[in-house]
Order: sequence, then C-alpha cells, then structure tokens
Amino acid sequence: MTRRPLEILDQALNRKPVIVSLKGGREIRGILQGYDVHMNLVLDKAEEEVEGSLQSFGTLIIRGDNVIYISPSVD
Amino acid sequence: MTRRPLEILDQALNRKPVIVSLKGGREIRGILQGYDVHMNLVLDKAEEEVEGSLQSFGTLIIRGDNVIYISPSVD
Amino acid sequence: MTRRPLEILDQALNRKPVIVSLKGGREIRGILQGYDVHMNLVLDKAEEEVEGSLQSFGTLIIRGDNVIYISPSVD
Amino acid sequence: MTRRPLEILDQALNRKPVIVSLKGGREIRGILQGYDVHMNLVLDKAEEEVEGSLQSFGTLIIRGDNVIYISPSVD
Amino acid sequence: MTRRPLEILDQALNRKPVIVSLKGGREIRGILQGYDVHMNLVLDKAEEEVEGSLQSFGTLIIRGDNVIYISPSVD
Amino acid sequence: MTRRPLEILDQALNRKPVIVSLKGGREIRGILQGYDVHMNLVLDKAEEEVEGSLQSFGTLIIRGDNVIYISPSVD
Amino acid sequence: MTRRPLEILDQALNRKPVIVSLKGGREIRGILQGYDVHMNLVLDKAEEEVEGSLQSFGTLIIRGDNVIYISPSVD
Repeated sequence: MTRRPLEILDQALNRKPVIVSLKGGREIRGILQGYDVHMNLVLDKAEEEVEGSLQSFGTLIIRGDNVIYISPSVD
Repeated sequence: MTRRPLEILDQALNRKPVIVSLKGGREIRGILQGYDVHMNLVLDKAEEEVEGSLQSFGTLIIRGDNVIYISPSVD
Repeated sequence: MTRRPLEILDQALNRKPVIVSLKGGREIRGILQGYDVHMNLVLDKAEEEVEGSLQSFGTLIIRGDNVIYISPSVD
Repeated sequence: MTRRPLEILDQALNRKPVIVSLKGGREIRGILQGYDVHMNLVLDKAEEEVEGSLQSFGTLIIRGDNVIYISPSVD
Repeated sequence: MTRRPLEILDQALNRKPVIVSLKGGREIRGILQGYDVHMNLVLDKAEEEVEGSLQSFGTLIIRGDNVIYISPSVD
Repeated sequence: MTRRPLEILDQALNRKPVIVSLKGGREIRGILQGYDVHMNLVLDKAEEEVEGSLQSFGTLIIRGDNVIYISPSVD
Repeated sequence: MTRRPLEILDQALNRKPVIVSLKGGREIRGILQGYDVHMNLVLDKAEEEVEGSLQSFGTLIIRGDNVIYISPSVD
C-alpha cells in the first residue's frame, strides 16, 4: 500500500493527538484539525512540555516550514 | 470538524489578542487585524515582553516567514 | 475592521518614520517611500543606532527577506 | 542505466527499511510508504536511535526540506 | 512621492558609489552597473574594507539573496 | 565551449565516481546514476569518509538543496 | 552603460579565471564554462586554497544558492 504524505495527515484529522517535532527542538502535541499543502497545521488542545511542566495553548496554527516531522500514531 | 489554517486566522480577526511566537525566541501579543497567504500578519495594540518589561508597538506588520506559531485562544 | 499587511504599508507611505526590525538584531528607522510584494522597502532619511551613536544613510533599499516586522506607528 | 531521484524512491516503496538522514544530525529508519515531489516522506515502523536507545514512532510524516539523503539499500 | 525599490536601483545606476550590506557583516562599495528582480547586482570598481585595508575587485556580480540593504546615497 | 551545469551532470552519468560536497562539511563519493533540475542526485556505490574510516551506502538519494558542488572529474 | 548580472557572466565565459566567493568563507577560482538562471556555475580548472596549499578539482558544478559573489576580473 502506498500513501501520499498529505493523505496520512487527512486520516489523522480529529482523532488521537499527533506529535509535531519542530526545528529548534520543540515538540508540540495536539488534535490535528486542519492542514494545507505547505504543512501549515491547526492543532486543537495543543500542549508543549517546557522544562518539565506542561503548557496548554488551546488552538494553535503552526507555520509549516518549522515542521521536522508529524507522528500521527500516538497511543 | 476540519478547519484550514488560514480559516482559523480569519476567525481570530479583531477579537481577543493572539500570541505570535517568532523564530529566535521572541513572542508578540496583539489583536489580529489582517493576514495574507504568506502568514504576513497585522497586529494592533502589539506588545512584547523584553527583559521583564512590556514594550508597546501600536500597529505591527510581521513578515510571515518569521512565524513559528499563532495562538488565537488567549483568555 | 480588517486590513491586509501590504495595505498597512500603503497607509504608512511618506508619513511619520517607521521602525524596521531586521534579522540579526538590527533596527532601522526612516520614512517609508516604497515597498513591493516581497516587502522590499525604500526608506528615506534612514537611521540606525550603532553602539549608542546614530548612523544616517539617506535613502536605503532593504531586501524584504531580512525583515522581521515593520512598526508604522512611531510618535 | 540512468535513474531519476524520485524513481528510486518509487522502487523503495514498501520494501526493506530506508535510512533518512536529516539536517541537524538526526537519522530515522523505516519502511517508505509514500513520498511527493518535495521529498515529503511517509515512513512506517519508523525508529530513531536517541542516546543509545531506540525510539519507535509507528507512522511518521517527514517534511522534505529536512532531508539530507535517503538510503534505500539497508540490508 | 512613492518609489518602488527597483525604481530606486534604476536611478542609482552608473552614478556615485552605492554601499551594499551583506549577510554575515560584509560591506561592499561600488558603482551600480546593473541589477535584476532578484536584486542580483553588478558593481563596478567594487571595494571591500577587510581588516583595515581596502581590497579592490573591479567588476563584481553579487547574488541577491545575500543583500541586507543597498544605500545609493554615498557622498 | 560553453556548457550548462545540468549538461555536465548528464555527461558524468554512470562513469567515474563524482565527489559531492554538502553543506555542513560532509563529502560523499559515488557513481552518478541520475539527477533532476533541483540537483537532487542519485549516487550508486556511495561512500563517505567518517572519522578516518569509509562508510558505504549502496544507493543514495541526495536532496539537492544540501549540495555545495559536484566534482565529476575524479581520477 | 547598464549591464544585467547574467550578461556579465556571459561575457566572462571561457576567459580569464573568475573568483567565486561561497557562503561559509570558501573561495574557488576557475574558468567559467557555463551558468544558468539560478547562478549554478560550471568552473573548469577549478582550484581552492585550503590551509595554505592549493587543491585542484578539474571541472566543478557549483550550486547557485551557495554563491555570495563572482568576480570576473582576475588579472
């Protein structure tokens, strides 16, 4: 089975949280609510672990050029 | 519900302040008055915390390529 | 009221000085005389504070990809 | 025999794991399930060695601009 | 009066030397003989101050993406 | 005689190994099997010298934006 | 006289060596045999001074985005 990158994003919409790894070492987790061809992302219930404690953002729009990878399979 | 990144920006226009996280660690807060497809942003009543004190800018045009994320859900 | 980023630049033309914040920490001030879609800028009476003293440039063409933000509301 | 870069990716789909070397020194291994013209990649059973231990991701979408090289010939 | 960035470059052609500030802190001075939409520049009688002494290049083609600003008003 | 950059790549296909110098200081050697307009490359029998010992990759797809130069004339 | 950047490259073809200054501080010298709109370059009899001694490459294809400037007027 072959699957295009954006197709995987489509299947991850509104399901279990995804992990988004950003350039510079940041990692944000949230429910994927939307995306576009640039990999701009909308995360709902977004959270980031900063120095051991969890920061909550609510909704977050991430500009795609910051993304290293997206991991849709968080259990 | 699925929502495109720019659609979220549209819903955030002229409401509660948004937080804009910039490459290099800067963070600017203000009322979103406009944007375009590059994520160039217009912020009104923009403020930045610099070394503990608040700097006020009035209106600010941010070039989109500096943006890491935009958080429209500031309470 | 919603305002596109380039529209704000248009309103700032030939008025009070704007502040242009550049990548790398430089900050240049001047009268905005022109711009284009890349945010290339023309500043007149441009000035930069370098190590406490003011350097004057006259006219300056700034390449847009260096811009972090433009603040048109200098009083 | 001449082979286009994306053609090689096509031949590597759903076979033995590939190694993906990323900017910043990270190296991720997994089954290539998809790609697009930007070299955005879908890896299944993705794994990364972090400080001597193996981190497993399941499916991973890697944004193409982070890629240095892809090595499809892991035995 | 409103002036587009490339229009200013056009007016600076073959006149007094311009100063070109490059990313990485280099600064080159010369007569502007040509440019294109990428801000690729042709400088004639180009000179750079390196560690206190003046290096002369004759003609120089500068790739536009290195440019921070161009100052056409050298007296 | 004038020769376009991609034309040179074409002449180097499936001949003696080429040296590819990458941003960040890495240098990879191999038989050029393919390329495209972005300078994405396919190297066969690719090798890299890492800390004095030779690492072999087999086939390698290098993303073009990492390339500094390609030297097709290895003897 | 006004001269477009690529026009200058055209006049420098197959003549005296040019100096190519690259991002990261490298400087390569050689006979310009070709170029394209991205400033990808073909240098023949290319040489680089590395730690005081001269390294010879023969033909070299330089990817344009590494170029800071090209100096065609080496005597």
